[in-house]
Amino acid sequence: MPNSTQDHIVSSYTDELTALAQLIAEMGGQVEVAIENGTRSLLKLDRELADLTIVADQRIDDMQRKIDDMAVSMIARRQPMASDLRSIVTAIHVASDLERVGDMAKQLSRRSLKLEGISLQPTFYNGVKNMTNLVLRQIKLALDAYASRDADAAIAVCNNDDEVDAMYTSLFRELLTYMMEDPRNITPCTHLLFCAKNLERIGDHATNIAERAYYLQTGKQLTSDVQDLHRTQIKV
Amino acid sequence: MPNSTQDHIVSSYTDELTALAQLIAEMGGQVEVAIENGTRSLLKLDRELADLTIVADQRIDDMQRKIDDMAVSMIARRQPMASDLRSIVTAIHVASDLERVGDMAKQLSRRSLKLEGISLQPTFYNGVKNMTNLVLRQIKLALDAYASRDADAAIAVCNNDDEVDAMYTSLFRELLTYMMEDPRNITPCTHLLFCAKNLERIGDHATNIAERAYYLQTGKQLTSDVQDLHRTQIKV
Repeated sequence: MPNSTQDHIVSSYTDELTALAQLIAEMGGQVEVAIENGTRSLLKLDRELADLTIVADQRIDDMQRKIDDMAVSMIARRQPMASDLRSIVTAIHVASDLERVGDMAKQLSRRSLKLEGISLQPTFYNGVKNMTNLVLRQIKLALDAYASRDADAAIAVCNNDDEVDAMYTSLFRELLTYMMEDPRNITPCTHLLFCAKNLERIGDHATNIAERAYYLQTGKQLTSDVQDLHRTQIKV
Repeated sequence: MPNSTQDHIVSSYTDELTALAQLIAEMGGQVEVAIENGTRSLLKLDRELADLTIVADQRIDDMQRKIDDMAVSMIARRQPMASDLRSIVTAIHVASDLERVGDMAKQLSRRSLKLEGISLQPTFYNGVKNMTNLVLRQIKLALDAYASRDADAAIAVCNNDDEVDAMYTSLFRELLTYMMEDPRNITPCTHLLFCAKNLERIGDHATNIAERAYYLQTGKQLTSDVQDLHRTQIKV
């Protein structure tokens, strides 16, 4: 085969891999906006923004289908070698995690529609706000670790998940106390409990993406041993 | 190519497709047991069964990886035609839904560990029990529709999801009233609310699987128009 043709094929394949990575990055950006808007619609009880977020989720779902189709078509046409195959299959899984995060954001917005007309003390919201900031940072860091194939950054994301869980547990307890103080708080605080749970699950998806990034770079599953070792090294 | 060789290749490919379908059926069976055990551990506050369900989830996760690897290797080696490609990619997605259902079952068991030592009135449980029976039936029907590629059965599963949602809403309201009656009910009922939510999400995964089964058989997405048409036909 003449060199030029071979170069062409290789180059076009590389282009496809780059295009796939770009689609994931684009989908990641859409999902980050969805999380921000979902929480904002909840905190401000903004119906218009809630509707917007619910509609935007359709585009996120379409993106997943697009990434799926592209990945499958690449596997079928290119018969990629082991390492490329790993990276294409990982794209399918990362897109699936992002799609679920989009769903969580949509659910935050749906919840805001249920809270309409219910007066909420601003203190109830603080925990949800702080937790949103934390999981948003986790999603960003996980997508960065995936894009740059940075195993250390991926481990850091997984370790940070303890912080998300701790914040969730503390928020859960706080909301329970409001419910116990006054039965009128029970309904709104129950909705906020579910929002907190949604945010905690967004954190889990960030961890999933980070674990995939780690596997992509190292070829090994990210075990708790590795995470512990990393924690020790940081302390020292 | 001599006929015998070609036959051999075709037959072995068919064998692989059958093996893939069998793996999904096996995984589905494991997931059904996990739902049953997860709820039973919750209703009986059975720590041993809870631990067993949590450990069993590891095997469900392993099954997903196995199905993933097999599907990807088939796409890479066989370069399947459109319809086979569709069925192999669907296997990846169905396995992913089943893995999430396994997670939900694990979460039911984890919740039972949190309820230990908290006395619960049996009436609190009735709703959870009924909802478990309903979503278990939905998962079974969805897996049957998938295995037999039965589009009508798939539509029926999607239509039944309204019943799951209605039961969830009624259970949600019922649990809220217990919480309002007595603040001591707030903590246990909050845990049960999350269990109800987990069951409702298992119902959603059943719908996902049914939608995939429909697409596999018809090549079309299952829209609400088709569902409505089906409802009308049944009424007539």
